[in-house]
Amino acid sequence: MISSDPTELVEQARGGSRTALARLLTFVESGGPPQLATAALAYRTQVPYVVGITGPPGAGKSTLTDQLINVVLERGFGARDVDQVSVLCVDPSSPFTGGAILGDRIRMQGHATNEHVFIRSMATRGHLGGLSLAVPDAVRVLGAACFPLVLVETVGVGQMEVEIASAADTTIVVVNPGWGDAMQANKAGLLEVADIFVINKADRTGVRETRRDLDQMLDLGGAHEWRPPILETVATEGTGTPELWDAVVSHRTFIESGQLEDRRRTRMRVELDKVLSAMVRSRIVALAHGDDYEEQIDSLLAGTTDPYRAAEALLGSE
Amino acid sequence: MISSDPTELVEQARGGSRTALARLLTFVESGGPPQLATAALAYRTQVPYVVGITGPPGAGKSTLTDQLINVVLERGFGARDVDQVSVLCVDPSSPFTGGAILGDRIRMQGHATNEHVFIRSMATRGHLGGLSLAVPDAVRVLGAACFPLVLVETVGVGQMEVEIASAADTTIVVVNPGWGDAMQANKAGLLEVADIFVINKADRTGVRETRRDLDQMLDLGGAHEWRPPILETVATEGTGTPELWDAVVSHRTFIESGQLEDRRRTRMRVELDKVLSAMVRSRIVALAHGDDYEEQIDSLLAGTTDPYRAAEALLGSE
Repeated sequence: MISSDPTELVEQARGGSRTALARLLTFVESGGPPQLATAALAYRTQVPYVVGITGPPGAGKSTLTDQLINVVLERGFGARDVDQVSVLCVDPSSPFTGGAILGDRIRMQGHATNEHVFIRSMATRGHLGGLSLAVPDAVRVLGAACFPLVLVETVGVGQMEVEIASAADTTIVVVNPGWGDAMQANKAGLLEVADIFVINKADRTGVRETRRDLDQMLDLGGAHEWRPPILETVATEGTGTPELWDAVVSHRTFIESGQLEDRRRTRMRVELDKVLSAMVRSRIVALAHGDDYEEQIDSLLAGTTDPYRAAEALLGSE
Repeated sequence: MISSDPTELVEQARGGSRTALARLLTFVESGGPPQLATAALAYRTQVPYVVGITGPPGAGKSTLTDQLINVVLERGFGARDVDQVSVLCVDPSSPFTGGAILGDRIRMQGHATNEHVFIRSMATRGHLGGLSLAVPDAVRVLGAACFPLVLVETVGVGQMEVEIASAADTTIVVVNPGWGDAMQANKAGLLEVADIFVINKADRTGVRETRRDLDQMLDLGGAHEWRPPILETVATEGTGTPELWDAVVSHRTFIESGQLEDRRRTRMRVELDKVLSAMVRSRIVALAHGDDYEEQIDSLLAGTTDPYRAAEALLGSE
């Protein structure tokens, strides 16, 4: 029988138990004491390298991710061998709230029985801070389970998707050839978060224009130490994916020579601020359901206090 | 010389000093201790009756407000005489950050020298909760200065504008004749907050269609005790404004026979929740600039804590 103790589960996950790992990720999604206990363990282990993959729906992110898994397992990650790859698929707009988003993952089925690959669709039922906190927690759980590399694929280009995908060491932004795709990427804030651009479906017309648009927009962004390269792929045929992975390796080498620590510190700040906000929000909700709160509202209506004093009184009486 | 003590200023404002009143409103906009002291006094006095006026830019809200001032001063408010009217003009998108938005208020110039009328454009430089809290504070200050009636006019139909205008006892939504205006009002959430609809510029074509669209959308909203009437005005000529004011009086009679207390209780809750959130946000910002915060980030990077424990530690150490 599978344990329900996070400490035991982490041990089992480190030993290779996928059932234990899946259970820990369910804890993370569901929130509450098991999530806190899991986080307490996972954040004390090594951080995996995180590659974020984002872009408009239909750009071919899943197929590309699928191909990258093959490349990584064949060729490793730079000089390092990689014998295990994990993928987190995030679709905040999905109505599915527990377990896997099956439909969209069908293409990864080839890997489903591969012991070197672990794929998980993330959903959230009860996590305090929703997916934007559940995903970093899940990344750390995968790190605790000895995965050296996590690919985080997000569907859609809403603020949350961009935020999740950009909380990575290397962020790949996928667009398609054609007028306006580069513009939309710009509008969605993808230009600022991209470390690498991929024009997928590059066998279609419009590649040159899209490349030119991206280049122009990068020029407008000014000079930086790292200028995001623009690659071309046809993911359905595997064309260009080894070169894409080379670019990821180059970017890793680049940030490891300086920026990696800063990046991770910034990410940690963002995450801590989110946890702070989420905790405080839940305290306010708790306050708003208490007797003290109703008393303050009565005093306000009676004109014996003002909202600032009332709020101070409530926050002081926690 | 004008005092800088809120207690003295409230006394002077009650005695009719416009300079004292203006100073108190500046305190409210600027935040900090004078704002808190002003709020402490203002929330302990009578609440004025608040009429919100909102709608898309260019719908003619200022001209309509201008005309309503005339009607109120001539005819009173139901059976009650009104010898003073105050108007708060709110434009959150305005680049002006201190004092009056002059350009748009030119039309109210006729009232500028009228001792029975007080007009103020609201801006916010430092208020903890921005305009959405500065406006309710200002309403209470006007109440403390013995204004029985405050018209709150908002420019634009963003979420904040709609929120501010709907924090009223009676909310008037102004649209123009023409295809799509009613639809846009629906989309902006104005349909839910309207107690009264006005089709202004009703001398133009399309009135019947707009009325029909509004009627259909109200039908879809289901049956309520109060169905918002749809009035027609040509504000530039004063046509229809006395009837509009009659509708406000009817709505006041309606809500005073039951809903007024509930409405004000709900408004108080919304306001208290906003103050709570704003206070807590400012505490988080303060936390994020402290030594304790940096220590927690260091521990997180060293892998000796997790974000949940770190947040608990920070919130506990306030």
